Amino acid sequence: MKEGEEVGLIVQKFGGTSVGSVERILNVAECVKEEKRRGNNVVVVVSAMGKTTDQLVSLAKEISSEPSKREMDMLLTTGEQTTIALLAMALNQKGFEAESFTGWQAGIITEPVHGNARITKINTDAIESKLSKGKIVIVAGFQGITEEGAITTLGRGGSDTTAVALAAALNADRCDIYTDVTGVFTTDPRYVKNARKLHDISYDEMLELANLGAGVLHPRAVEFAKNYQVQLEVRSSMEKIEGTVIKEEAVVEQNLIVRGVAFEDEITRVTVLGLTNSLTSLSTIFTTLAEHHINVDIIIQSITEAETTNLSFSIKTEDLNTTLKVLEEHKALLNYEGIDAENHLSKVSIVGSGMISNPGVAAKMFEVLAEKQIQVKMVSTSEIKVSVVVNEVDMIKAVEALHDSFGLSESK
Amino acid sequence: MKEGEEVGLIVQKFGGTSVGSVERILNVAECVKEEKRRGNNVVVVVSAMGKTTDQLVSLAKEISSEPSKREMDMLLTTGEQTTIALLAMALNQKGFEAESFTGWQAGIITEPVHGNARITKINTDAIESKLSKGKIVIVAGFQGITEEGAITTLGRGGSDTTAVALAAALNADRCDIYTDVTGVFTTDPRYVKNARKLHDISYDEMLELANLGAGVLHPRAVEFAKNYQVQLEVRSSMEKIEGTVIKEEAVVEQNLIVRGVAFEDEITRVTVLGLTNSLTSLSTIFTTLAEHHINVDIIIQSITEAETTNLSFSIKTEDLNTTLKVLEEHKALLNYEGIDAENHLSKVSIVGSGMISNPGVAAKMFEVLAEKQIQVKMVSTSEIKVSVVVNEVDMIKAVEALHDSFGLSESK
Repeated sequence: MKEGEEVGLIVQKFGGTSVGSVERILNVAECVKEEKRRGNNVVVVVSAMGKTTDQLVSLAKEISSEPSKREMDMLLTTGEQTTIALLAMALNQKGFEAESFTGWQAGIITEPVHGNARITKINTDAIESKLSKGKIVIVAGFQGITEEGAITTLGRGGSDTTAVALAAALNADRCDIYTDVTGVFTTDPRYVKNARKLHDISYDEMLELANLGAGVLHPRAVEFAKNYQVQLEVRSSMEKIEGTVIKEEAVVEQNLIVRGVAFEDEITRVTVLGLTNSLTSLSTIFTTLAEHHINVDIIIQSITEAETTNLSFSIKTEDLNTTLKVLEEHKALLNYEGIDAENHLSKVSIVGSGMISNPGVAAKMFEVLAEKQIQVKMVSTSEIKVSVVVNEVDMIKAVEALHDSFGLSESK
Repeated sequence: MKEGEEVGLIVQKFGGTSVGSVERILNVAECVKEEKRRGNNVVVVVSAMGKTTDQLVSLAKEISSEPSKREMDMLLTTGEQTTIALLAMALNQKGFEAESFTGWQAGIITEPVHGNARITKINTDAIESKLSKGKIVIVAGFQGITEEGAITTLGRGGSDTTAVALAAALNADRCDIYTDVTGVFTTDPRYVKNARKLHDISYDEMLELANLGAGVLHPRAVEFAKNYQVQLEVRSSMEKIEGTVIKEEAVVEQNLIVRGVAFEDEITRVTVLGLTNSLTSLSTIFTTLAEHHINVDIIIQSITEAETTNLSFSIKTEDLNTTLKVLEEHKALLNYEGIDAENHLSKVSIVGSGMISNPGVAAKMFEVLAEKQIQVKMVSTSEIKVSVVVNEVDMIKAVEALHDSFGLSESK
């Protein structure tokens, strides 16, 4: 890679699986060593080893059914602290000068929230002082500190965010996210044999894919990268092959309008029947659901001149019982006649920046699905995405048909 | 206890065995709760759970044969951090407000040394702010931070030192050291059935006993307590019974001159034969041994008018091979004729502040040993202690005889 050949600053991030054992930590040390040997300064961000976080959570649950979030943060941050020390030892053993830093030592300041804090500021003095001495700096991901000195964590995907935020603050040339897949694919290669790895992808496309459950990168990290124009590369910690570059403007291969097909199962459609038409009925329903932490995805309402209307929305199937309970408890307030719920549904989405300037993409999607006799139950669109809800049995068939029809299955 | 009934500030310390499982942590929470219920403010210092530290050391050894001390401190301090979070959760679960603090959050500043740092200063603001709100403060033992922000550890017995140092800095009314024994005994109750628990003991006596391997309290912690006049109490975390109070002037029970009999096996006597008499020969030998981390205990040399002399000193048997190697390597420099080493020896010591004003204690000791046909191989004395080296087979016989003869076996 061209960037790697220049003298610069590279931030590398390794997730829990990549540092899951002593052997894997030694493998990570090799990756770090190679980047340092190319003449670059290197900052490494690591997660807790393998299942450590889960084990710590279990330990806490043995003591308290609802442990304080402050103390959970105190407990969980020991996981990454263990990894940074071991990785620094591994690099020292290989003859490289490396020093580990906890989140607070690395100057990662967050808002005063436990369990899901956002980074507000990074004081890079300590890190820059070590880099200027040629040392490799290893930083505990997922953790920070409030202005008042309390230890916080950044929530799901927190180590990705730490890496991107450090890359932004240090003005790094690149931020490499090492993971257990070799890059970002046109669709999930575990389900679709024609899935191809993308050479590059734009922040916006990645954001839609991340939000749609592609799972490679946390949306918050992608958003951060977009806001600070940090060039990301998703690559494998096991295989030495090129990954996928994520940047502002991706080079569109073969003028492809659609860049990826994402999918998600265990979706349920809930329909509220005979809802009285009023200005506040929608906000009342969704505020009530939000208060009970139910994540509503697609919402469909056809407003008519009649006194009552039907409202449909999609949720994760695991939230169905709570949703029904909440709606039942507030029946008088919400003023509706009945509830209908349909399980065993899936969401399939096509994503691509090119859609903005190409009308008719949604139409083509419906045509492809109709040809395959797949019934579309709900539709949702954004500027660079079209999502449909279909029966779960049709999910992979729909993904394969769309992947083929939008030219993603062809080799470059 | 009188002190417990007053409103005040109590520092409690629980060692690794006392917090070795979830069940034991819940038991510790009960101890803390009781002290808080008596109306006292409570600061709790805890160690890492059971064998955690050993496990972390093994993990490090898998990666590096000689891990950097800085990174070992980074690694090991996760142990206490885990315990403080779990104990805080346990107290919260029981309805008590508690907050955990790492060493650096508790303001424990140390010299910039890794693995064995001394506390130089404690900024108590954070702790005092929480205490003033009625909260229980839980502090990670064994750890601190340098002025430059590096994480350090305090070495063996570090959590004892943290507890005593916090008690001094916070001007606590008492520092309770909870452990797996019920107090300080006249001798080791595992070996001598007549051993009695002491009601109280002076700092100086405890220092001699701690240094002689009684193992209940680390000497550095006792020294700290003496310097800052912190009243200590050693007590059981399992049984609710009175422990042993350690303070400046212990009430001497029944005018006992000797307060305790300590003993230690696996001692070796090394004799350097035909050492050329010179002003520097002693310092050369012991400087050389110290440079190789060999701890020399008793030293005996009879200066004569002859050109050469014999020098004897005692070491731990485990250090014998290194000692012989070092002496051999420096034979030319040290200028001696030969080396003789005698294994299977033990050290037996009597300790008591009353000795200062009672001449003839050593004489009585020798008389008792002679009556029992026990040969004395080496002798060492301090103001409040007499130590003798005897054959290992005679050790317990010597301890029992001294324990009886100096009146320690009689009930109060």
